[in-house]
Amino acid sequence: MAEQPEYDLVGIGNALVDVVAQTDDAFLNSNELSKGGMMLVDTDQASALYDRMPPGIEASGGSCANTMAGFAALGGNGAYIGKVRDDQFGTVFRHDMQALGCDFDTAAATDGPATGRCLVLVTPDAQRTMCTFLGAACLLTPDDLDKDVIRNGRVVYMEGYLFDQPPAQAAFIEAAETAHAAGREVSITLSDGFCVDRHRDAFRDLVEHHVDVLFANEVEICSLYQVDGFDDALQQVRGHCKVACLTRSEKGAVIVSGDEVHVIDAAPVSKVLDTTGAGDQYAAGFLYGYTRGMDLQASGKIGAITAAEVIQHYGARPEADLRDAVAALG
Amino acid sequence: MAEQPEYDLVGIGNALVDVVAQTDDAFLNSNELSKGGMMLVDTDQASALYDRMPPGIEASGGSCANTMAGFAALGGNGAYIGKVRDDQFGTVFRHDMQALGCDFDTAAATDGPATGRCLVLVTPDAQRTMCTFLGAACLLTPDDLDKDVIRNGRVVYMEGYLFDQPPAQAAFIEAAETAHAAGREVSITLSDGFCVDRHRDAFRDLVEHHVDVLFANEVEICSLYQVDGFDDALQQVRGHCKVACLTRSEKGAVIVSGDEVHVIDAAPVSKVLDTTGAGDQYAAGFLYGYTRGMDLQASGKIGAITAAEVIQHYGARPEADLRDAVAALG
Repeated sequence: MAEQPEYDLVGIGNALVDVVAQTDDAFLNSNELSKGGMMLVDTDQASALYDRMPPGIEASGGSCANTMAGFAALGGNGAYIGKVRDDQFGTVFRHDMQALGCDFDTAAATDGPATGRCLVLVTPDAQRTMCTFLGAACLLTPDDLDKDVIRNGRVVYMEGYLFDQPPAQAAFIEAAETAHAAGREVSITLSDGFCVDRHRDAFRDLVEHHVDVLFANEVEICSLYQVDGFDDALQQVRGHCKVACLTRSEKGAVIVSGDEVHVIDAAPVSKVLDTTGAGDQYAAGFLYGYTRGMDLQASGKIGAITAAEVIQHYGARPEADLRDAVAALG
Repeated sequence: MAEQPEYDLVGIGNALVDVVAQTDDAFLNSNELSKGGMMLVDTDQASALYDRMPPGIEASGGSCANTMAGFAALGGNGAYIGKVRDDQFGTVFRHDMQALGCDFDTAAATDGPATGRCLVLVTPDAQRTMCTFLGAACLLTPDDLDKDVIRNGRVVYMEGYLFDQPPAQAAFIEAAETAHAAGREVSITLSDGFCVDRHRDAFRDLVEHHVDVLFANEVEICSLYQVDGFDDALQQVRGHCKVACLTRSEKGAVIVSGDEVHVIDAAPVSKVLDTTGAGDQYAAGFLYGYTRGMDLQASGKIGAITAAEVIQHYGARPEADLRDAVAALG
């Protein structure tokens, strides 16, 4: 194995194709969907909801994959691990990841459920409500981990959504152990408040014992510690992992690392069109700086820029070329 | 059969899913693609080009289907006839058409090639260059025509691209004869200058003997008559069909019907982002007015509005609700 890591970042997540449609509150209400949340649905539920949905646009998605897309767009060198089926959506997902310059060599499943889909309903207030049919993404197991890839990455980054399926949860733990055994770092995002509710104990154990760099928004970190106030959550997370990046939408982000605390303002935006992808792209920007050895303040500023870009257009992956803006930060 | 037609418009076309990616002139040149044109490719060529393409967005497309989408968005009552396969892209295409309120009941093919795809390369000058893998769309034959649907439509509208496959060409002719036998009108678009080059004699025969309402842009109508100047083409087309709508991008459109000639300015646009879909949406707007019994001037103004909307955003189907703007015309 080369002494120098081959990859800056290795991402592991649910490989999904988004089906994005514009809708309104009445549609969410009549389908009993909780605005802004991510709900898991089975094949039949996904199919029934899709039948009622307005026309959509299909685009590769998946939280961690979106982060890897942003990371690659900044010039970062990444690899992705996740499970698709050998179907048309799986081909689209793989094409898009590889076309971005992110390695993605996990074998596609040859039977079982179709490539996973996230039905994304965007309301006029720029919020996204998501119903995810995990499909083949469920089939990710420890056997799918290319351990040489993990050992060759400076940081392995995983999404909390993986905890929704036991085999993926096992893969999550094994990837973390593989990375640590090779002297690498482990980073996770808590992904979603409801996801934290579903797996609170497992996440607490992870954050206390396995995670070097944690990403969480205000709802997620408060859910993790079952506290009402952000500052209470902040006090609890300090010391639990090497670095915690706590994002607060327009209030910016707080980055804590032992005694070091940074409060970084959100980057200015002219008009918010579609908020999701913000967390994914914040992580992409922060980790781009972090894996290049930048300090926490500079890394946090990059995260603020990449998050601001993605909420000003539809879609969860960056459209603008941010390399110049990031280079200007030094 | 009811005396009152059930449908305002029945569209017949190549059912395709667009795969849209941003690219540059260098990419077009290195892949020997002629900017602004539509090139037919086979499975292997489509696959090889897709492998080289940047990440894309998938959306239902197909020229005539885009027109039907715009027609439905204006409140028109339409039905579509076209061929997909029973695969994921076919499901997306059917969902999107039905979700728009356009009936689409042509049976999906259960074997043979996959649902057709159009690889769309958008350059920074807002032009689209298209490579189409027709796939299952090729399989459209006269047997797929639901003749009751055609007899129940005020106007049957067909895309010239259908002429690229003999069985679809036969379906085209049979649909026109069915419509005329039921006292309905037949409308076509010439689709593309290269398409006219490939099938000039057949198109001339159609325009002279079978078509009531013709849509063509400047390149297409000049190609049809093998003349260099627009006015020469205009003089030739007069009298060949009941109505000819000749579109000229920012110069607006000329509508001729016997001795009646209208020169309608283009509607104002603030910024052109993506020009294709302009012709499809012009036809949607014009036919919306025309099938409601509006005069040619009013119908032409609606076409100008719907064409202007679609070139101001990415994608070939309308995003804005134009019903108020159209109602204001009167």
